[in-house]
Amino acid sequence: MKTNINKTQDAGWNIGPQTLLPPAGASDVMRTSIANTPQPDVEAMQQVAPRTKEEWLAVITETDAPKEDGLQTLLAQSPVSVQNDEIAGVPVFKVNPAEVDPRHENHLFVYVHGGAYILNRGKVGVMEAIIIAQRCQMPVLSIDYRMPPEHPFPAGLEDVVTVYQHLLKDHPATSMTLGGTSAGGGLILTATSKLNELGVDVPGALYAGTPWTDLTKTGDSYITNEGVDRLLITYDGLLEGAAHLYAGNKNLKDPLISPVYGKFHDFPPTFLVTGTRDLFLSNTARTHTKMRAAGVVADLLVFEGVSHGDYAFEPTSPESLQTYAELNAFLLRHLQ
Amino acid sequence: MKTNINKTQDAGWNIGPQTLLPPAGASDVMRTSIANTPQPDVEAMQQVAPRTKEEWLAVITETDAPKEDGLQTLLAQSPVSVQNDEIAGVPVFKVNPAEVDPRHENHLFVYVHGGAYILNRGKVGVMEAIIIAQRCQMPVLSIDYRMPPEHPFPAGLEDVVTVYQHLLKDHPATSMTLGGTSAGGGLILTATSKLNELGVDVPGALYAGTPWTDLTKTGDSYITNEGVDRLLITYDGLLEGAAHLYAGNKNLKDPLISPVYGKFHDFPPTFLVTGTRDLFLSNTARTHTKMRAAGVVADLLVFEGVSHGDYAFEPTSPESLQTYAELNAFLLRHLQ
Repeated sequence: MKTNINKTQDAGWNIGPQTLLPPAGASDVMRTSIANTPQPDVEAMQQVAPRTKEEWLAVITETDAPKEDGLQTLLAQSPVSVQNDEIAGVPVFKVNPAEVDPRHENHLFVYVHGGAYILNRGKVGVMEAIIIAQRCQMPVLSIDYRMPPEHPFPAGLEDVVTVYQHLLKDHPATSMTLGGTSAGGGLILTATSKLNELGVDVPGALYAGTPWTDLTKTGDSYITNEGVDRLLITYDGLLEGAAHLYAGNKNLKDPLISPVYGKFHDFPPTFLVTGTRDLFLSNTARTHTKMRAAGVVADLLVFEGVSHGDYAFEPTSPESLQTYAELNAFLLRHLQ
Repeated sequence: MKTNINKTQDAGWNIGPQTLLPPAGASDVMRTSIANTPQPDVEAMQQVAPRTKEEWLAVITETDAPKEDGLQTLLAQSPVSVQNDEIAGVPVFKVNPAEVDPRHENHLFVYVHGGAYILNRGKVGVMEAIIIAQRCQMPVLSIDYRMPPEHPFPAGLEDVVTVYQHLLKDHPATSMTLGGTSAGGGLILTATSKLNELGVDVPGALYAGTPWTDLTKTGDSYITNEGVDRLLITYDGLLEGAAHLYAGNKNLKDPLISPVYGKFHDFPPTFLVTGTRDLFLSNTARTHTKMRAAGVVADLLVFEGVSHGDYAFEPTSPESLQTYAELNAFLLRHLQ
């Protein structure tokens, strides 16, 4: 019997192939955008495997450079200001809406950008911070944390913790949100663990948008949504490489690298969001149920047809509007 | 441009094939159970297409008969009593735990079983009601509503509404939960719409476990989780046939048949649960976000590795324990 079990486990189930149409159950904006997206090229993405520091930097530059246009467009449409600054030696961007909602007058959103721990250096890292500042009408501080290949783990985590601890001098913990998407969602979770470890007060609320909480290829959606997620496409190649580049000589399952393996006791209320096409659907769902089992107030939204981060990348979609409206309501409920 | 869009939509994306291993991110109990489940046979399931009334009844009997053993085992393990009764001409089962939690003393869980609107006639329909009575320590009343092939829509819906209205004579609406899994989850949502339409007070809370809210094959997970969901396996064949058998000459997108096309305003707080392998992941997620957009208090859990209804069919798994513990906490918070 034991042998049969192992045999079954080793073999796995064969699933697919399938034909996936644009999601009829998503909004018109989202469905049209997806219908205009070329079929994700899994094989090409699997080949993206930089080895040297120079190769990594080339991929990073090549991926980030085209985002400048999108940033300028977003800035032109958004009544927000973006200013460079530095906190305790860490570069940050202060992203302020033209008008602050009086209910958020004493609140601060500390934002940690995503990008697989390698992308979105500098100003292109503030895109979602701009959306949050505008939609929630609250001040956002975006941390331009250190990343590999120059600075692997724990440099970025240290930067987030350092900035947060510095902010505590002027801001009560309960007035602050720590939040981000993807690697940013992972970093705010590991940072909160670290704060608990250090005995530092945790923020009043967390935002973990489709967080990268398992840097190993563990989770159903790494398989079921390969070639379905139009942004990440596949774990193999870039993500796998970035995971190892970030972790350096550490185990990928170290809870300060893959927070789904950590403990969530003493975490503040957390808002999570993902989609049915998200390669990180399992990352998000596993984190959510584990938080809930630990007694944390954790609220999950799963949008039909939505790939990794689509709520930020399709900012005019009803899915995006609902995401940030719900995030804002969540923050108003839990921040003090 | 328009032509290109349509072309893309017509063509769709090719995804898979893939090999899916047992979910390393699920609990040991759930993972072992899945590892011992033979690969779902999609092609065989697609062939299940009864045509005549006699063929349908044969499939129903063949599918339900083996459940008797499971029911007896569950009953032997559960300190609950099950009694036949009838309310306003509708057969029901009174499922009472040996001990009622004093906090639930005045509460009643009105349960509507699942089974694609065709299965689980009679006593085999009370399995999840037994689990709920035991885990929540509250009295459950399970409705043995009429089903096709003899009684298509709206017979079952009418039975649920009739029983609920009759119960209102002795029970304040706010003290009652209406809940069920799969087709039962769909039925409690359409029943609530119907109650709103009739101007009748809705229950204090709803439980919609992986509800069948779209009887057409609309939703990402009908595609991405075909052959992944170990219970339902595929929409094609039995589910498609059952949808048409239930709807009769009505449109499958009638909101009283597929509640995801309805309005959720004035719905009470609703607890929803699904899993990453659930063929009805999209049904559940679409319903949840639509409820939330309508201002309803709606709480969603998505369990890693979990197929349709696994929380009920693997009652010893941590996923099952968490599901009903959270459902109970939700009911204690919202019932009066």
